[in-house]
Amino acid sequence: MALHGQASSITAVDRDRGVLDKALGLGIVDEATSDLAETLSSTDLLILATPVKQITMILEWMSSYNGGKLAILDLGSTKKEICTLMSSLPERYEAIGGHPMCGREESGLGAAQSALYQNHPFVLCRTSRTSPYVEELALQIVHTIGAQPMFLSPDKHDETVATTSHLPYVTAMILMDVVSAVAQNNHYTWTVSATGLRDTSRLSGSNPQMMLDILLSNKEGVVKQLRAYRQSLAEFVPMLEQGDEQMLLKWLNEIQQNYWKYRRGENI
Amino acid sequence: MALHGQASSITAVDRDRGVLDKALGLGIVDEATSDLAETLSSTDLLILATPVKQITMILEWMSSYNGGKLAILDLGSTKKEICTLMSSLPERYEAIGGHPMCGREESGLGAAQSALYQNHPFVLCRTSRTSPYVEELALQIVHTIGAQPMFLSPDKHDETVATTSHLPYVTAMILMDVVSAVAQNNHYTWTVSATGLRDTSRLSGSNPQMMLDILLSNKEGVVKQLRAYRQSLAEFVPMLEQGDEQMLLKWLNEIQQNYWKYRRGENI
Repeated sequence: MALHGQASSITAVDRDRGVLDKALGLGIVDEATSDLAETLSSTDLLILATPVKQITMILEWMSSYNGGKLAILDLGSTKKEICTLMSSLPERYEAIGGHPMCGREESGLGAAQSALYQNHPFVLCRTSRTSPYVEELALQIVHTIGAQPMFLSPDKHDETVATTSHLPYVTAMILMDVVSAVAQNNHYTWTVSATGLRDTSRLSGSNPQMMLDILLSNKEGVVKQLRAYRQSLAEFVPMLEQGDEQMLLKWLNEIQQNYWKYRRGENI
Repeated sequence: MALHGQASSITAVDRDRGVLDKALGLGIVDEATSDLAETLSSTDLLILATPVKQITMILEWMSSYNGGKLAILDLGSTKKEICTLMSSLPERYEAIGGHPMCGREESGLGAAQSALYQNHPFVLCRTSRTSPYVEELALQIVHTIGAQPMFLSPDKHDETVATTSHLPYVTAMILMDVVSAVAQNNHYTWTVSATGLRDTSRLSGSNPQMMLDILLSNKEGVVKQLRAYRQSLAEFVPMLEQGDEQMLLKWLNEIQQNYWKYRRGENI
């Protein structure tokens, strides 16, 4: 949608004919098909925009697919597995990993917004199959959709998003798990809840299959952050139980200051 | 601000002369003073809108203050301590507890929004000093600012907000604690972070003194919810480590469904 009118032609590929018809009907794409192989011969650039596991399956299939030259960019949420596969693709492929740092808790075509990428970082990960040509193509796309390119190694990307994205997701899920359990015995729970719960739990609405692929393909990184989270929580609970006002206030102040530095962009 | 023009006269009482001048300058209030005692004789209704501990201190001071009849409404975030104090006030006072279920992570007059209360629940807690008169007055105020009145006992209120408000606050704080620590060694952390981290951590920007009072005056309830949170997290980490896709997907699906039921208002 963000590339609409910016490319000479865009072809949508999806297993779901209903989605393809909708995309055509809305005029978002010029052509639509469920046959990936058929499309490849007439395509300059293939953009893989599915959950991570589907991307790895398509890349594995392409390794043995006997086609011509092709440039590939993916939009997967983790990059190690995908970029490792890209690096071992046959030489006829030119491939670069990508991850736009924006998203919504709703998924599917109905939730699409063309302005989603505006002013957000778009991580690019070079692989052994990254040529100057595909890198330039990826940069053009990033600029066209209004995002800001940022080169990171696949390892650094996955390590970083374990903290900034996957940890917040899991903490939102655990929160929703606890609140839902309480709500079964206290019917005021949902009525009394306000914007605090809404925002803190928002990520728990994310697509489960997409998130499963992310968690499994970045398991070590996520587990490491969850351990740090458990440790901080394990230290906070007795601090609250003891009720040492000075110690609590110091802790609350420090973290509040970190939050506002982050929101003001002072620690970047 | 939301009552502006709806009362015959509004007097602001604050220790900070700068805030009073600002409120007068903006035309939000008709009069302003730092002397609470002086104001009481000419006031129909006293609205206590400070952090919880200040409210309890003012109520304790009023118990021994030798004034005339007065109606009191408070806006404190926890209700047990406050309503217990209200119930033991001298009989010349008519008092009712209140808690509008809305808020912002920013505090102070600069963050005030007159539309903040619109369509949000406004919890009212009856005390032994709640007369039909003060209850009717409170209801008028709730309706005037566009909120929806909801009567709860102080115990039920505090039990419920431990889950819907205080637990999300602490989880946001722990998250910000972990992310800040990681960011000290990985300077990509803040740059790569997107709306997910922003929303999940938003409550950590809340006023520390206000939150300290809340946590301490609802300690048992908050600790109980934090224990439930720790338990759910303790069960999730090994599930992720084992990587059982079916079990993980079932867990992710269930919680995601709970979230969307909550957002669609289906479980209320």
